[in-house]
Amino acid sequence: MQDVASQLEILRRGVEQIVPEADFLKKLERSVRENRPLRVKYGIDPTGIDVHLGHTVPLRKLRQFQDLGHTAVVIIGNYTAIVGDPSGRDETRSTLTMEQVEANARDYLKQVGRIIDLDKAEVHHNSDWFGKWSFLDVLDLMRNMTLGQISAREDFAKRIAAEKPVYLHECLYPLMQGWDSVEIKADVELGGTEQLFSLMVARQLQATRGQEPQTAMTMPILVGTDGVRRMGKSLGNYIGVAESAENQFGKVMSIPDEPMAQYFTLLTNLPGDAIKAALAPGANPRDSKEILGKAIVAQYHGEEAADRAAAEFRRRSSGEDPEDIPDAFLATDKLDHEGKIAAPTLIKELGLEATTSNARRVIEQGGFNVGPNREIIREPKASVYVSDGLIVRVGKRKIARVRLV
Amino acid sequence: MQDVASQLEILRRGVEQIVPEADFLKKLERSVRENRPLRVKYGIDPTGIDVHLGHTVPLRKLRQFQDLGHTAVVIIGNYTAIVGDPSGRDETRSTLTMEQVEANARDYLKQVGRIIDLDKAEVHHNSDWFGKWSFLDVLDLMRNMTLGQISAREDFAKRIAAEKPVYLHECLYPLMQGWDSVEIKADVELGGTEQLFSLMVARQLQATRGQEPQTAMTMPILVGTDGVRRMGKSLGNYIGVAESAENQFGKVMSIPDEPMAQYFTLLTNLPGDAIKAALAPGANPRDSKEILGKAIVAQYHGEEAADRAAAEFRRRSSGEDPEDIPDAFLATDKLDHEGKIAAPTLIKELGLEATTSNARRVIEQGGFNVGPNREIIREPKASVYVSDGLIVRVGKRKIARVRLV
Repeated sequence: MQDVASQLEILRRGVEQIVPEADFLKKLERSVRENRPLRVKYGIDPTGIDVHLGHTVPLRKLRQFQDLGHTAVVIIGNYTAIVGDPSGRDETRSTLTMEQVEANARDYLKQVGRIIDLDKAEVHHNSDWFGKWSFLDVLDLMRNMTLGQISAREDFAKRIAAEKPVYLHECLYPLMQGWDSVEIKADVELGGTEQLFSLMVARQLQATRGQEPQTAMTMPILVGTDGVRRMGKSLGNYIGVAESAENQFGKVMSIPDEPMAQYFTLLTNLPGDAIKAALAPGANPRDSKEILGKAIVAQYHGEEAADRAAAEFRRRSSGEDPEDIPDAFLATDKLDHEGKIAAPTLIKELGLEATTSNARRVIEQGGFNVGPNREIIREPKASVYVSDGLIVRVGKRKIARVRLV
Repeated sequence: MQDVASQLEILRRGVEQIVPEADFLKKLERSVRENRPLRVKYGIDPTGIDVHLGHTVPLRKLRQFQDLGHTAVVIIGNYTAIVGDPSGRDETRSTLTMEQVEANARDYLKQVGRIIDLDKAEVHHNSDWFGKWSFLDVLDLMRNMTLGQISAREDFAKRIAAEKPVYLHECLYPLMQGWDSVEIKADVELGGTEQLFSLMVARQLQATRGQEPQTAMTMPILVGTDGVRRMGKSLGNYIGVAESAENQFGKVMSIPDEPMAQYFTLLTNLPGDAIKAALAPGANPRDSKEILGKAIVAQYHGEEAADRAAAEFRRRSSGEDPEDIPDAFLATDKLDHEGKIAAPTLIKELGLEATTSNARRVIEQGGFNVGPNREIIREPKASVYVSDGLIVRVGKRKIARVRLV
């Protein structure tokens, strides 16, 4: 195992809070001294997630622990998913069935396998324990929390103040999450900042069961590609880990300059010096984002694909045709005896617009050009001479190479 | 079945609230029209109760329903007892084990058999349903209540304001009690005034399950023999249904005048006119309490025993010796050659005081007399001539007839 100082340097990167910090140090020191891996818990409810870069923030931290020789313990909260985590929510979640949850769980594990090493991780479903519980067991768990503690939770307090209902079953959530830590004897639990309440509940439950309480390690909430709100599917400001290299790269290039530093810290392993250089005053943000985008895309698609995506993005943004131009087939009998065809008809036949009237509008707006010299055709009534291999461009994005058949 | 009006007259007696009153009328009218008994629920948690007159208030109402041909449905809350009813409490109840609860339940049923007709009643233990529940079932139940509703409960609100903890498991109590109504399809539920919140929760749960919601009928809280606080075992101001006729009667005679009207209404079946006469201005409260005491005692020990207890009480309170004087044996060799014994030694030997020094104190205070003429002996050093059959009195209460052996 690496020594404590060098582990700390890696593990502290990007972290919001370690609570209590002194406990964590003690645990880490003992782990190194006794060569005993820490049990690092990360729980997620399989509520139908497309894993995006926001989710990777704690998952990447978990991977760092793994790479340092610690044990990643992933809790699939198939039972807690039924309740729905109220953390950071401003209303009650809708209900999932056990069947939906099981399907989601399988899908979710496939996705997180892109970030952590599942072969070396422990994976538990919390139905393994909660599924066996009786009413009395639930009651015993509930004895560990008061109405006062639960009402003081920031997110609940906000909902109560706004007169939005907080249902009783939601109060059970942090206790269930906490109990997971008892079951798997967690040393450390990772979560977003809004999870701190639940992570602290676990400490209390572990103590009542004679276990050494876990340390909470909270990660910041990643801002979305809009640079304003947290990354989320419903806000349309996310970058999915399963998206194509081109999409991922393009989305990174589209972010405002402000969140760049956060993205570098939380989403890449680039050393601090490299990040500092990339963000130095005078550096072109376009170049910085290219470094960032390549570093991110390489994690999910490899370096070669990342380089290709970057090159492609450059080509497109400088107005060049893309490397791969799709073929579009045109029957020769559509051409007149001079080998020509009306411009709007050509556009429609190639599938670049749905109707000839749409095509006419694009032509009138100057959005139609052909050939290596990008000859613009502005007259909707014009006819175009078509030879095999002619490149046709419509608007900024649509392009095709005509194949006569 | 009796007609609606005459049933109402009996059923409304002493009742605090019927909620909603219109629903109750409708149910009662339909019951008479279709000759279909109402299902009247009364639940009690077997928490180790000595049933006292305070408990008999709703139980007597239940008996009235029985006598009118309705069905008494008694819920033994052996599962809810584990939680502990927080209603009207200013702190969290201590925890009972299932074993204690089972023993209590058996004992409790024996006691309530003195008030209701158990042969005609339905008796359910709520472990019959809750014992089979899984975690998910509990969660489903909890979805029916919000933190806002629960915090607004009067007793919880008071505890929250006083910064006394309300534990999460206590919040489940009203939902469990309410679910009992769903299981047994209650038409009416009886309870103390502090039960109204729980009785209303049942209505809501029944409605979500497509049942006609029950009507709540709340009974006033009986004041204890101190005339101030609610009757309760821990306050020492109670009259137990299992107590002797003499004790019950004596305790009734000891109450202040104010609660007499409440006792007449809630604890006897005496008609309104008879009560009015007993409480008329100018009536001697002593006589009124005797009527009250006889009416109460007769319910648990029969009229003869009630009359005897009343006569005995009269005798004692007028300073006469009781009818039955216990024998106390004295060995003749304790007497000197004149047949005398030192007064303190006599008192101790008869077991009327534990030590001769205690006996000396009573003698000095003038609390010792003997014989038919109640000859007072004030000199601790005096000797007393003892013949077989001599009556010896110590203080106001202790008396014995000496038997020489």
